[in-house]
Amino acid sequence: MDNFNFYSPTEFIFGVDREIEVGKYIKKYGGSRVLIHYGGGSAVKSGLIDRVKSSLETEGISYVLLGGVRPNPRDTLIYEGIKLCRKENIDFILSVGGGSCIDSSKGIAVGVPYEGDFWDFYSKKAEIQTALPVGTILTIAAAGSEGSGWSVVTQESTKLKRDIGSDLIRPRFSILNPALTCTLPAFQTACGAADIMAHVFERYFTNTPEVEITDRLCEAVLLTMIKETPRVIAQPDNYDARANIMWAGTVAHNDIIGVGRSQDWNSHGIEHELSGLYDCAHGAGLAVIMPAWMEFVMNHNIMRFAQMAVRVWGCEMNFENPELTARRGIQCFRRFLHDIGLPINLYELGAKEEDIPLLVKNQGVGEGRTWGFVRLSADDITEIYNIAARAKI
Amino acid sequence: MDNFNFYSPTEFIFGVDREIEVGKYIKKYGGSRVLIHYGGGSAVKSGLIDRVKSSLETEGISYVLLGGVRPNPRDTLIYEGIKLCRKENIDFILSVGGGSCIDSSKGIAVGVPYEGDFWDFYSKKAEIQTALPVGTILTIAAAGSEGSGWSVVTQESTKLKRDIGSDLIRPRFSILNPALTCTLPAFQTACGAADIMAHVFERYFTNTPEVEITDRLCEAVLLTMIKETPRVIAQPDNYDARANIMWAGTVAHNDIIGVGRSQDWNSHGIEHELSGLYDCAHGAGLAVIMPAWMEFVMNHNIMRFAQMAVRVWGCEMNFENPELTARRGIQCFRRFLHDIGLPINLYELGAKEEDIPLLVKNQGVGEGRTWGFVRLSADDITEIYNIAARAKI
Repeated sequence: MDNFNFYSPTEFIFGVDREIEVGKYIKKYGGSRVLIHYGGGSAVKSGLIDRVKSSLETEGISYVLLGGVRPNPRDTLIYEGIKLCRKENIDFILSVGGGSCIDSSKGIAVGVPYEGDFWDFYSKKAEIQTALPVGTILTIAAAGSEGSGWSVVTQESTKLKRDIGSDLIRPRFSILNPALTCTLPAFQTACGAADIMAHVFERYFTNTPEVEITDRLCEAVLLTMIKETPRVIAQPDNYDARANIMWAGTVAHNDIIGVGRSQDWNSHGIEHELSGLYDCAHGAGLAVIMPAWMEFVMNHNIMRFAQMAVRVWGCEMNFENPELTARRGIQCFRRFLHDIGLPINLYELGAKEEDIPLLVKNQGVGEGRTWGFVRLSADDITEIYNIAARAKI
Repeated sequence: MDNFNFYSPTEFIFGVDREIEVGKYIKKYGGSRVLIHYGGGSAVKSGLIDRVKSSLETEGISYVLLGGVRPNPRDTLIYEGIKLCRKENIDFILSVGGGSCIDSSKGIAVGVPYEGDFWDFYSKKAEIQTALPVGTILTIAAAGSEGSGWSVVTQESTKLKRDIGSDLIRPRFSILNPALTCTLPAFQTACGAADIMAHVFERYFTNTPEVEITDRLCEAVLLTMIKETPRVIAQPDNYDARANIMWAGTVAHNDIIGVGRSQDWNSHGIEHELSGLYDCAHGAGLAVIMPAWMEFVMNHNIMRFAQMAVRVWGCEMNFENPELTARRGIQCFRRFLHDIGLPINLYELGAKEEDIPLLVKNQGVGEGRTWGFVRLSADDITEIYNIAARAKI
């Protein structure tokens, strides 16, 4: 096991109706003048924003509102948010929405106290030194941003999707009410599930030997997703299934299951270019890319893929030919993604095979190689997109 | 799933040689005058205390020392520690040792700022309002106290073992170097493993339905312990196996695997009277009590015990007679405990069957019933001790 630090100081407030306590928690974590940052109209229409406002008013906390966060959040709204926060002397950002909304909030949080352009952090020109505190009310189980120190944002002008990571942007608290996710359409629910599972697989495929505890914890989250996702697709109102997925989504990405081992994250990088260019759902893009990536890298460690097949997908081990078992596990994963209604190739995603050179170019690997389980060259990434183009059940 | 809050703000600093960074972390968490609290001579003899002192001196942090913590920590040393801290104006307690040492440190931490008798917290006469910050350097993987808000202490005069629980006594940081545990004797290693597994089982046996994610996470920790414990008994120096057990021990008890479900904890209560009366190792007492408790309560939910048998112990499900599967799982657990060198009945533990009435009386249940998976009367507890007296492979 590798040396590591693990620090997850976010307070999670989980369960039915917990969002009405939000004012109390903002007060606990020092907020007095709040930006309520949210996405589309559903948070307003459902009455959620009204419940939030009412809770803040009860605690005597003032607020301003900024809606309009879209999936794959843009830098443009973050610039607007930074300006608004400075003008209104905001000292706490409350994010009401899914991962995009939280990531946008984190962008605003690092931008407000910084004199330069906040994009400097995402383009790795500057290092985060301080940030406004962020709290969240999560409405989609997917990104894990409610418990992570990560944020991913798209630069509108270039369509480049870039990330930042720092303990300073871990939310102070996150309110997780699974009932809020019961109204999500099946497709969004499935995209969220694919994102959660991808967060686990990015950690599962490691070059660090002898990491049984984190292997088993990763498998625990995957087994839960395999059981519960088809249930919520069939019964959107199933609270317990939604609750299991919601806690799985947080555990998948606060890194408690990924510490002490090398991680991959190439599938995320390869997918980000898809959602950057086509504005498709991140989870849908991952459904197309991740099994293709698995097929491409499988020979690097057949036994690890066989382990996934046996422990996660319940395949029988083929002791005479472990490669067949490994391949069977990947097939099970792709079949699962298809069965929950996700695209499994570029065509189904709405992407074009002729854009592959552009996608590879945007990836910015050039003649170099990426990090990860298998270090990928531009040619390797091209081949993964090609596998993704041709994939079928 | 039940509503819950989960808050684990401890920073974990894990890996080889990390203890030499301790001065830096004390500074980070505001300590300037430190009580170094430790157990027996091994921390001194091994040079660990010297490395700690040197790290503090490098950071210009002053300290006083208080050793002598014994397994099943006593109130008497805590009174001494409180007096010393007040006299020396201590503002941070560094605990160098295992669960007993950390629990003793937490007792001192709540006692220093409290005007009354610190035992008031353990006897539930007073509620914790504030505490000195505590940091730890863990030397035994067992109690999980390095990441928990719990402390268990024995009152010397009465032999009563009582606990406190509060987020205020969660350590600010915990340094976990698995190499420090490589010198532990096999028996202590096995006792630690039993304690870790018991922390999981106390959460696993629940009356809350539909908690797949925490079920699976519990099983992940158990599967790891089943794989790694025999390895460290056979190869005490196996760093990776020690590392997997150490992280498993923390994950088992910071509650991330136990949230949103009713828990039991009766086996811990029943065991505490054993280690209170005989001063036996807590893990050894649990090895005797926990399988006995399982046999006594099994009929309350046969399918949950069958699930344990199949998922944790790899038993085949007997679909015609699930009770046989359930019973087989408990047998596997007891066999495992025996194989790693632990006692499995009162006799092997050094306890006396004729003391059972006294043990039950100390438990303090009287004519009432406990909480938990199955609410136990004094007669039920008597029967569990009786099963434990007669148990064999």
